[in-house]
Amino acid sequence: MNGFLLIISAPSGAGKTTICREFLAVHPEVQYAISTTTRSPREGEVNGKDYFFVSRDEFDKMIEEDAFLEYARVYNEFYGTSREFVLSCLRSGRHVLIDVDIEGASQIRSLIAETVSVYILPPSLDELEKRLLLRDKDSPDKIKLRLSRAQKEIAESIDYDYSIINEDVDTAVKQLGIIYEAEKLRVAYHQSHIARLTGAE
Amino acid sequence: MNGFLLIISAPSGAGKTTICREFLAVHPEVQYAISTTTRSPREGEVNGKDYFFVSRDEFDKMIEEDAFLEYARVYNEFYGTSREFVLSCLRSGRHVLIDVDIEGASQIRSLIAETVSVYILPPSLDELEKRLLLRDKDSPDKIKLRLSRAQKEIAESIDYDYSIINEDVDTAVKQLGIIYEAEKLRVAYHQSHIARLTGAE
Repeated sequence: MNGFLLIISAPSGAGKTTICREFLAVHPEVQYAISTTTRSPREGEVNGKDYFFVSRDEFDKMIEEDAFLEYARVYNEFYGTSREFVLSCLRSGRHVLIDVDIEGASQIRSLIAETVSVYILPPSLDELEKRLLLRDKDSPDKIKLRLSRAQKEIAESIDYDYSIINEDVDTAVKQLGIIYEAEKLRVAYHQSHIARLTGAE
Repeated sequence: MNGFLLIISAPSGAGKTTICREFLAVHPEVQYAISTTTRSPREGEVNGKDYFFVSRDEFDKMIEEDAFLEYARVYNEFYGTSREFVLSCLRSGRHVLIDVDIEGASQIRSLIAETVSVYILPPSLDELEKRLLLRDKDSPDKIKLRLSRAQKEIAESIDYDYSIINEDVDTAVKQLGIIYEAEKLRVAYHQSHIARLTGAE
């Protein structure tokens, strides 16, 4: 592998989507791991850019063929990460960013060695609640459920390599950039330079 | 431990001393691991700042008491890193930078878990030779010896976490800063925040 897979997870409301979008805007050389899904495209969504849209039959066939690094059912629709899409990017030397939940991250880590995982934390539970309320799409009961689920998930985030406290988006994006730049300095990525210096190449 | 130990090594002539000095100037919060030595102070050197100057007897006693993380003999003088000095800094939450050779680095890694090691590489062997010649203190034969020793050492640098190619000092110092900032984002350093969020604290 010449590239690594940057895995980003966060509890709902922690700001993961915005951070990923802004990070990718600053680092266009990083490939976003486009999900494959059975759900219908929404207004403005482009096949092969936002998602790979497939039928339920096609998705089932991909599961059978072990074509996913991870997949999950959300309500009545399926979402998965194509193994071939990610691996071919990594082989060609591109770094890949994937936005995935804690279970998906754990599955991916067991399949790919070259991962760097980052868990986005809210600055406080109060702030997380505030952000969920601002979205204004969930009932108070549902928000309570989301908060207790978030707490459970956060407790499991110790399996990640790094964490970023999303106090403000700009700082969080900058910190994600620092992690990305540091990981590119890993000894593993200097092997050909070392081989040249030692005459092994 | 609340701090980590940033281990910097490089072949002679790769620019390690300059990079460390400039990094420490930008990051005064990082403690430099002052060596203990039996050699006499040179003009302008201050005890407790540049080195801890001790007698040969005192050094031998420290060896007996297992007071060094690592020590080495260079010609007729001894140099060592005080275990207590480094550990007390790390315990108090300070990050520590140590400039040490490849054998010393390996000894330290076996004793302290919280290390981050960086190997400084020259851009090419020709450039390394040029830098050694510019120093103008070694004979051509000695430079040849240094170069072949450098090649052997570089081949062993795969045990380090990161490497930096010292093309120019400013970039190298910036890259060392990126590694340092990224390491501060390790999940291990967010444990108390995670405990607060999950109600474990």
